[in-house]
Order: sequence, then structure tokens, then C-alpha cells
Amino acid sequence: MLIHDDRLFPAEPATRSIARALYAHVRSLPIVSPHGHTQAAWFARNEPFPDPAKLFVQPDHYVYRMLYSQGISMEELEIGRPEIKDPRKVWRIFASHYYLFRGTPTRIWLDYAFQELFGLEERLSEKTADLYYDTIAAKLQTPEFRPRALFERFHLEVLATTDSPLDSLADHEAIRKSGWKARIIPNFRPDSVVDPEFPCFAQSIAKLGEQTRENTSTWSGYLNALRKARARFRSLGCTATDHGHPTAQTADLSQTEAAKLFECILAGRADALQQELFRAQMLTEMAQMSLEDGLVMQVHPGAVRNHNRQIYERYGRDTGADIPRPTDYVQALRPLLNRFGNEKNLTIILFTLDESAFSRELAPLAGHYPCLRLGPPWWFLDSPEGMMRFRELATETAGFYNTVGFNDDTRAFLSIPARHDVARRIDCAFLARLVAEHRLDEDEAHEVAHDLAYRLVKEAYRL
Amino acid sequence: MLIHDDRLFPAEPATRSIARALYAHVRSLPIVSPHGHTQAAWFARNEPFPDPAKLFVQPDHYVYRMLYSQGISMEELEIGRPEIKDPRKVWRIFASHYYLFRGTPTRIWLDYAFQELFGLEERLSEKTADLYYDTIAAKLQTPEFRPRALFERFHLEVLATTDSPLDSLADHEAIRKSGWKARIIPNFRPDSVVDPEFPCFAQSIAKLGEQTRENTSTWSGYLNALRKARARFRSLGCTATDHGHPTAQTADLSQTEAAKLFECILAGRADALQQELFRAQMLTEMAQMSLEDGLVMQVHPGAVRNHNRQIYERYGRDTGADIPRPTDYVQALRPLLNRFGNEKNLTIILFTLDESAFSRELAPLAGHYPCLRLGPPWWFLDSPEGMMRFRELATETAGFYNTVGFNDDTRAFLSIPARHDVARRIDCAFLARLVAEHRLDEDEAHEVAHDLAYRLVKEAYRL
Amino acid sequence: MLIHDDRLFPAEPATRSIARALYAHVRSLPIVSPHGHTQAAWFARNEPFPDPAKLFVQPDHYVYRMLYSQGISMEELEIGRPEIKDPRKVWRIFASHYYLFRGTPTRIWLDYAFQELFGLEERLSEKTADLYYDTIAAKLQTPEFRPRALFERFHLEVLATTDSPLDSLADHEAIRKSGWKARIIPNFRPDSVVDPEFPCFAQSIAKLGEQTRENTSTWSGYLNALRKARARFRSLGCTATDHGHPTAQTADLSQTEAAKLFECILAGRADALQQELFRAQMLTEMAQMSLEDGLVMQVHPGAVRNHNRQIYERYGRDTGADIPRPTDYVQALRPLLNRFGNEKNLTIILFTLDESAFSRELAPLAGHYPCLRLGPPWWFLDSPEGMMRFRELATETAGFYNTVGFNDDTRAFLSIPARHDVARRIDCAFLARLVAEHRLDEDEAHEVAHDLAYRLVKEAYRL
Repeated sequence: MLIHDDRLFPAEPATRSIARALYAHVRSLPIVSPHGHTQAAWFARNEPFPDPAKLFVQPDHYVYRMLYSQGISMEELEIGRPEIKDPRKVWRIFASHYYLFRGTPTRIWLDYAFQELFGLEERLSEKTADLYYDTIAAKLQTPEFRPRALFERFHLEVLATTDSPLDSLADHEAIRKSGWKARIIPNFRPDSVVDPEFPCFAQSIAKLGEQTRENTSTWSGYLNALRKARARFRSLGCTATDHGHPTAQTADLSQTEAAKLFECILAGRADALQQELFRAQMLTEMAQMSLEDGLVMQVHPGAVRNHNRQIYERYGRDTGADIPRPTDYVQALRPLLNRFGNEKNLTIILFTLDESAFSRELAPLAGHYPCLRLGPPWWFLDSPEGMMRFRELATETAGFYNTVGFNDDTRAFLSIPARHDVARRIDCAFLARLVAEHRLDEDEAHEVAHDLAYRLVKEAYRL
Repeated sequence: MLIHDDRLFPAEPATRSIARALYAHVRSLPIVSPHGHTQAAWFARNEPFPDPAKLFVQPDHYVYRMLYSQGISMEELEIGRPEIKDPRKVWRIFASHYYLFRGTPTRIWLDYAFQELFGLEERLSEKTADLYYDTIAAKLQTPEFRPRALFERFHLEVLATTDSPLDSLADHEAIRKSGWKARIIPNFRPDSVVDPEFPCFAQSIAKLGEQTRENTSTWSGYLNALRKARARFRSLGCTATDHGHPTAQTADLSQTEAAKLFECILAGRADALQQELFRAQMLTEMAQMSLEDGLVMQVHPGAVRNHNRQIYERYGRDTGADIPRPTDYVQALRPLLNRFGNEKNLTIILFTLDESAFSRELAPLAGHYPCLRLGPPWWFLDSPEGMMRFRELATETAGFYNTVGFNDDTRAFLSIPARHDVARRIDCAFLARLVAEHRLDEDEAHEVAHDLAYRLVKEAYRL
Repeated sequence: MLIHDDRLFPAEPATRSIARALYAHVRSLPIVSPHGHTQAAWFARNEPFPDPAKLFVQPDHYVYRMLYSQGISMEELEIGRPEIKDPRKVWRIFASHYYLFRGTPTRIWLDYAFQELFGLEERLSEKTADLYYDTIAAKLQTPEFRPRALFERFHLEVLATTDSPLDSLADHEAIRKSGWKARIIPNFRPDSVVDPEFPCFAQSIAKLGEQTRENTSTWSGYLNALRKARARFRSLGCTATDHGHPTAQTADLSQTEAAKLFECILAGRADALQQELFRAQMLTEMAQMSLEDGLVMQVHPGAVRNHNRQIYERYGRDTGADIPRPTDYVQALRPLLNRFGNEKNLTIILFTLDESAFSRELAPLAGHYPCLRLGPPWWFLDSPEGMMRFRELATETAGFYNTVGFNDDTRAFLSIPARHDVARRIDCAFLARLVAEHRLDEDEAHEVAHDLAYRLVKEAYRL
């Protein structure tokens, strides 16, 4: 067997038995996935997923960055090509290096999918590469492995995608029109039209103007266009925005100053500081709009994008070469919080890649400001140890109720049940320790486990 | 029962049994509380504490910041009013939101007080709100619950308050004159007269001059005034000063430069950098005075005070809206350490709100400089997980003997026994693990447990 | 007994039993020590080590900085003197303060040496000081305690020293010529000739020129001289360079700019920023040379050297007064990585004293760039808790296979077996937890334990 029923539970028998009991009540709860990077097109078209390499290796930068770090080239893995010419060869490379993932969450997610979805029980290795390839390839052609069938099998109550304001959302519309009753909704991610350093920024602004019939060469037209785009997203079920800026910096300029800055940005005359100031101001504008239309804000700061210049130039964004930096929240968020921090009707969910901020900044902020909540451990921290440290570092100051359950944040659709399962197990393991150490009663732990697995995410994301 | 005899001990039976044995020898040791924010007036007057809301909710920003973070307004809680109009209503709000404190130290402290002091054994909730209110309100009227009776019941050997140099210390004098034999002493906290950003700084300097009959409009008169104020505190048993600056920055200006800077500060012409430089210089001046008069220095840096502008403007300081920032010690302390770092007769106790400094800066500094000691985990870190991380992060480089036992640092008098109990239990839990892993012999662990609970604090604070 | 067979293993019985089984297979593996500060002269001359104080107290800043922090003077310990006048007195001071090391790795290392090498079984204390002194002093005079005998007894397969490019390496040559078959090799540590802030920098550059017969007053002559020095080290078995800069900053200047900067540095006209830029450029030049000659690069950044001015002025470098600072890797390494980051034939091993970088920067960098590997926890972090945190913080993103086994990095020859033993035990304890929590199969854990103890270090250091 690849996965064990007691996986991720503490070894100490009394604690493990509490963890088991807690988990038994949450393991089968529906999955609410309010933030991720799956494609609505999969569900609109409902075509079979292609081969194993295309499914598990090519789209998953967690997988191929580890292979790359050990000297396997992007060419060998056929990364960046629309089609994989020799998927079995790519799969064999992956299989024979599967030992590299020992001790990583990727290993846990993959083993879960291999066993639970494909019935594989012998470890992936050079030896079993072809068995895996053939088994997975065959199943992918069956009706039970079409995207919609998997969606239902995964017990997904809500699945959110992440979309640019310029996206037509045609796939979302197609899903709705198809009569299929799944709740698949977009997240509004405006980075491409609020971050002047985004490629083709000016063209995107112009395109936004066309789509919304607003004059986006003026500040007020630009803001109106964003309002209209948000309304369009809301009409398709969107409840949240998402902001992936390099920092958490916010600003609170007067509208005159902001208009002037926007003009300077559009004219291409802005330096790095002005670009940062514009992003900062736009977070505050987005908060203003959220107060108006009720969209929940997510802030995902702190990654240096495209750190590896050669890889970026050849393969583009999101290729495993984003690296976190120290991230300030306390001074950065102050302009926004001075304006909206005490609003009960605003929800801003903060994420971090800098764990040192959990106990120092994020828990104290979320443990005070009514508008703030803490997002779950993200990206490099979305792992058993990372999740456990998050609870240990944040709970004592922020409590459980200023957190918002789990986000899988994945591009790998098949990893969704595994990722939620890991989160539920780790939360139960943490709660079991509190119970075993007489810091929480068992009946309370059951309630908290349920809240963390299901209730808080729906409440925080207004689902 | 609200609290369990084995609370906070590791679940693993062998380790728990070592922890129990260690704790058995320290649980009843007298409490030495060298730093906190209780009021001498309580003990001078010895009047009954008022109602439960006034006792547990209104003064404790740990409590109401959590309620506030979840959308309960300061008005509903009647924060900032001299009297509470409807204390039962405030109590009921608190009771029905008590679940928010799950997993927090506040919950542990409160449950301890509820059970140990008031005999309550059913969990606080909406349902038990009135039972709690009536039980607590009734007991508060009995002689056993007067401040002095509680002081004795708590087995307090020393209790230090925190006081401005401008404070008359009349309450301290009244306690002494009353013939009651408790050791209640002031801490000298000069922030209001050394930090130019403190409200009414110039007036405070003038008042200091009047009180000490020194000309505080000159640098030398100002220093003399501080010396006299320190002497006055010492005459009432004071053994320590306390410094709550935004950073740990120190400076070592010549007396001519310092005098010039003081002039500029007093004239109101100083910019932010000069104000920071003045605070920095004053830490070094305080160290100089400590060498002269033997007062131990405590440095509590790293909080951005009054982060929430609206709350500050309406409710003033210390309302739960102080947020930590990254804090540098290595470069910041260098000017002071270059001058006094090798003095064996000087003791400077360093605190932090930035845990990343424990293993990186604070343990290496305290593990080398004779004048430095590490204070216990403070404020947001004064919690089971925070305390355990402190021992794990600091001990291997600083050892146990460059730490100084526990500070409760509380405004909530009734939480003192609970807080010291948590510290003793966590230290025993940490030591028990070292013993169980054969990293320390059990006889040594007993000695260390006693040192951490009792001996080191007396030695470090010269009590 | 001072040390227990199960030391450092988790107390939970099932996990401990897995740890024991893993450790049983790695405990007797040969020791590969690719980075440290022992002296080749010991093995060239093979003379007896002097007295216990000279062996255990005087050279080990871990030991005497702790004593110093508690008020024992450098004079009392006779630090900084070529001979110790009263070694028994120094030893007694040390013995009577041995309790200060409770909970520190120094205690673990020393107890191991006391018991395993000298057969001592009663704890070191004031009472046993003379017993220890006499026992150790006597054994040191026997043939079994000569350096070469100990080297063989320690089962050392490779031992690397750390040497300046200006070092004649005569002792290394003498070892080779002696016919003794031990593999003792130098590491190339060029700080003294690439860091302009190093004492006597200009003289060192001139001396380098003389030794290599290159004109080191020109940029190209200087680079040639370094190439020749590297070749000389390689001819004596050297496989690695080592760089102890204050930061991890790198630069990628044009050769014209670099030559100009070098000129300015040599002329003594460079300011602090230019000195930093020169060090930064030299890391990139070293990477270029490593690509040419195959030497592995080690980068050990982040210490503020000689923090205590008085101690530095009286006793010089490496006296326990180096203190870590926050260290940036993400922006700092970018110039070098932009140029060489994707080279599979280059190996750069990164170390840190700033644990907050493990999960935030170092694991993401090493989990992507082919040239990067993570060195083991270093210096203040070379301890049971520090090692365990390293595995917990780095493994989930970097995996095990982007790490390089253990470095003892010691000046204390007798601590080498103890240090490697601690590393093996902690790695087995970490792996045992993964197995007990069903995150790794036991057969895989055995393979990883072997890799971490033996294989990875040989591979990474090209031994």
C-alpha cells in the first residue's frame, strides 16, 4: 500500500487515537476550494485528460523544479511544449527520480492519487514506471476519469478558478449553460491590469477599456472599468479577488495624486518606486470596491517572480523559479488599514511565504483588525510541517476563528482531494495534541476540526 | 473540571511522568514577579475589586482585542469608560464568545482563575454566563478576595509595578507605611521623559525638573534629575529600570553632541531620525547610571505602538493595537556594548517580539557578553508554544544560565498565578524531554527547574 | 555513565525503536569531514596533545564564550597566551562551571569524548576536576592518543582543513611524504586575499604575487595568481573552496569595471560599498574558476565578525564574539545565478546562520537551481534542535537530495566523532518520525540515512 490510514498522525498512541477520532468526523466532508489554478475549460469541454506525463509532470512546477534542481533539463522533460512528443520517456525519467520527492508533500499528494484514483499499490520507481504509465493512461480514457466525473467523485462543493479581468469567462458561462449543476466560480485576479511591471500592461489596460466600454486612459474611466469587470465576475458567482504583488505595500493617495500617478504610469514614465506606489494604491482602491460590492480580498505577496532569468526567457512565467523574500506587513498595510481596518463588512485574507511573520506580524494583526483574516500556509508552506508550524505560530494570538480553512491553490486537479486530506489530518493532529495536553476539551476539538475543514472557509469567502 | 493536573505536559507517558516529577518540586515555590503592570493603589487601598466585567474584560487587551477582531465593537464592551454601565451585558457578550479563545493562553489563564479562585468547574459559555457572573461578583465582595488577601494567597514573594519617573509613588509609600509586610516595589520606566515622541514630552521634562528641583532645560540638569528620580525609586525598593522603545537602537555620542541634541529635541526642532538618536543615546546614559546605582536594565523593544489610528484617537494607548516589527539587536546594541558590554556589574535583560532573533542574535549575544541576559518570552510569545520555542531556540547557544526566569508582565492581577504556573509547566515539559532523550540527567533537571522557577529571577533582578 | 545508547532519540517507544534500527546501520560508517578547522601540523608532526586545558578550553570558543558570558575573565582562562601557565587551575574553573553547558551541544560533545575516549563515567564538576585532569593528562601521553592514532581510531576517511591561499601547505606535503596513508586535504579559503577589509589585505595580495610569480597589482595578474594558488591546492587533494563573507552578495561586473574596482581597492581608495562590491564580484569570479577547475564552492555568510571591540583588540579574531545577522540570499545571489545558476557542473553549497532563510529562501533556491546545494546547520545551529529544525524547515521544499550530509566545522579534533554521531542520531530521529507517521517507508528511510551519513557528502564534495 502506498498510503496508510494513520498517515500524518502523531505516533504517540493516545494522541493518535484522538486524532483518528477527530479525523473520522471530517474526512468525508465536502471539499470547498475557494482559491486555485485549475482550468474551467476542463469542465466546460469535459474531454479526457491526456497521458500521464501531460497530467502529472508538465503542468506541475512542484514536480519539475525538483527534477531540474538535480540536473534534469527542461528539454528532457519537454517542458514548455504544447504537446509531449514522447510522454512515456518523460514519465520514465520522472519515475526513476521519484526518490527525490522523499519527505516532500508532492510525494504525499502523488501517492494518494496513485492509490486512491488509479488503484496502484507498489511504489513508483524505474521498475514500475511502465506499469504506472499503462494503468494511468488506460483509466484516463474511461468515463469515470473525465473532469466532471472526477469533480463529482471528489465531492467538490465549490471550486474557484483564478482569472484575469480580461478573460472572457466563456468556459464558466459554458459550464452554467450546460445544465451541469457544479459550482465552479472565478476569482478576480487583476494583477495584469494593476501591476505596471506585468508584461503588456498598457495593451491590457486598453483591452480592458474596450471590453468594458470605458475610457481607461483616464483614472476615473480605469476605475469604472475595474468596477464593471468585477460586476461581470460576480454575475458568474465570483466572491473573491486575489492580488499577487511582490510586496504587501498599500497606499492612500488623494484621488488627484492617484490620477496623476496613473497618467505617469500609462505614459511609461514611471520608475520602480512609482510602479510600487501604484500597486500599493490599487490595493486600497480594490478594498474600496470590495466594501461596495462585497468581494473578499486575498493578498498573496512576497514572491520574487522569475528569479532564474534564463528559464524565464525560454519558458516564461510560473516555471518553478519564483523565490520568496522577507515580507513586511506592519508598515505596508498601514495606509489601507488606517482607512478601512475597522470595517466589519470588509474581509481581507492575508497569505505569506515568510514564516517569520506568522507570530510576529500576521497573528497580532489578524487578532486585532476586524477586516483581517489569515489564509492557510501557502505554496512552499502547504506541507505537513508548514501547516503544523502555522497552527503553532498563529493560533495562540489569532485563535482559530481568524483563520479561514484550507486553500489547495493547485494547478493539478488530481491533487485536490489529497491536499485537503493532508490539511484535515494535520489540523486534527494539532488539535489532538491540544486535547492530549489538556489545553482543549475533546468536544471543542471536534467543533474546531469541523470549522477548519468546512465552515470557516464558506463563511470567510462568503460562499 | 476546567483544568487538568497534567495540563501542558507532553502526552508521551515516560516524558510526562518526568515532567510531573519535576513540576512537583517547583509548583509551590513562591512567586517572584519582577516586571508587570498591576497597580500599587489596589494594595494601598485594599478595596474590593468591582464586578467581573471590570475585572476580567475591561482592563485586559488580550481579551478584548480578540473580541474586537471578530466584529464586536469597543462600545458594546464599554471599553474606555471609567465605569461600566451594564457589566452583566458585557460579561454575557464575553461569555458567548469565549470559544474564540480556544487554543490561546488567555483561555488557560482564565480557566485557571475561574476554577482555582472561584471554584467554577463548568465551561464559560452563553449558558453559564450568569452563573459565572453571580459567583464571581459575590466572591469579590468577601474579605478573601480583597487585593492583599489575594496577594498572600498567591504566595507572592515580590511584586513589581511599572511606573513613570513622574509618579509620586504615593501608593508604594502608603503600602510601606501601612505596616503590611508585602514586598511591592516599583520599576523605573522613563519612556515618557526619554522618548521625544511620547505625548506631552516637553511638559513631562518640565515636571521632572520641578519634582527633582533640577533645571531640566539643560542636558546636565536633565541627567541629574533622572539620577534623583532613580534614587527616589530605589529608596522604595526599586531594583530595575524598563525601556519600551520602538527599536533596540543605542548610541554613544560625546557629551557635547548629546547636549546639543537634547537642546534641539527640547526646542521641538528634531526630526524622526534625531528623535530615534536621542532615545538611542538615552539607553546608553541609562546603562551608565545603572553602573553607578546598580539598577538592572530591561529593554522591551520592537512594538509599533497604536497601529490602529482610529482606535488610538478614540481610546488611547494600550488598547490591543500594538503590532511587532522585525527587530535588530546586533548593530543596534553595538554602541552601548562597545562601551559597557564587558562590565560584570551591569545587567541588561533583553526581550523580543521577533522570534527570529532568538537563535540568530539574542542567544549568541547573551552567550558572550557578560552584561547581557535574555528575558522570558514576552507578550504575544508569553504562551505555551512561545515559551517552548524560546527554550528550543535559545538554550543551545545561551544555556539556561543566561536567562532570568519568568515575568508575568500582566495588568490582570488574577492571572498571575496562572501565568507562572504555565511557565513552570512548560519549563518542566522542556526539561522532561531533555531527560527522556538522555540529554540531561534527572538530578540536573531538578536543579534547573528550581533555578528557572525561582533562583535566577532573584539573582538577575538583584532581589 | 555520561552518555546513553538511546541519546537524542525520540522518547515515544515505537519511534525510538525505528530510530535505533536506522542508526544501527549508519553508526559505524566512516567519517567524511569535508570542512573544518583542525591543523594539518598535528598530523604532520604527530606529537602528543598537551594538557587538558590546552586541548579542551583554550582553542574552543564554544567553551570559553559561555564561561565569559557568566563573568569569568579571559585572563583567568589564560586565553590568548601561547602557553598556559597553570593548566590545572584553568581546568578547575572550567569544571566547576560545567553546569553552564546543560542543554547545549558542547555538553554532548564533551561528555562523548570524556567517556568514549578517556573512559570517564562520572560527571565533570568541581569535585571530579582533578580526576578528569589526571586521567586525561595521562592518556594524552600514550601512543594511542597521538593525532594519527586518533585519526585512525575515529575511522576518518577524509579530513579537510581550511587554509589561506598564502599557506605553504608544507604540513599537508609532509603528511603525504611521510608515507602515512590518511586522506587529509586542504580547503581553499581566500578571504584574506579577496576581502579588502581583511587585516593586511594589500600585503597579502603582494605576497600572493610573489608566491605565484604573477603581477598581482593588475586585475589579470591577480586572477592568474588565484588560479595558480587553486591549482596548487588541487595538487594536494583539495576539492573545495570556502568563502566567509559578511553577506552573500554577488555581482557580475564587466571585466573592465572589475579591473577598475580592483585598482581602486588596491590603492586604498575604496569605501565600504566598493569593498562589498569587490567581495561580491569575487564570488562570481570564484564561481567562474570553479567551472574551470571543478572545485566546489562553499559560502558561509552572515556573521558580524569581532562584534566585541575590546575583546577583538586584546585577543584578535575567532574569540567567540562573532554574532549573526539577517542574511539575504534571494537578491544577493542573483547576479551570480543569472550567470552560472543553470550550470550542472558547478556546485555551490550554501550555509546560513539565519534560520528564517531555510524555508523562505534557501530551500526554494536549492529546490530549483541545479548548481545549488544546502550545507548542514552551521555553528550556532550545529546542535540537536538546530539540526532537527533544518530538516523540518528545508526537506519539504528542497528534499534530502539537495543537501550534502554533515560538516563538523570544528577546531576541536576530539569532538569530531561526537559531532558526527549527533548528526547521524538526529537525522535518524527525523527519519524515524517520518516512518512512524507513515510519510516514508522504512526501507527508504534506511537508504536516506545512509545517504545523509555518507554518500551525499562524498558526492557533493567530489571526494
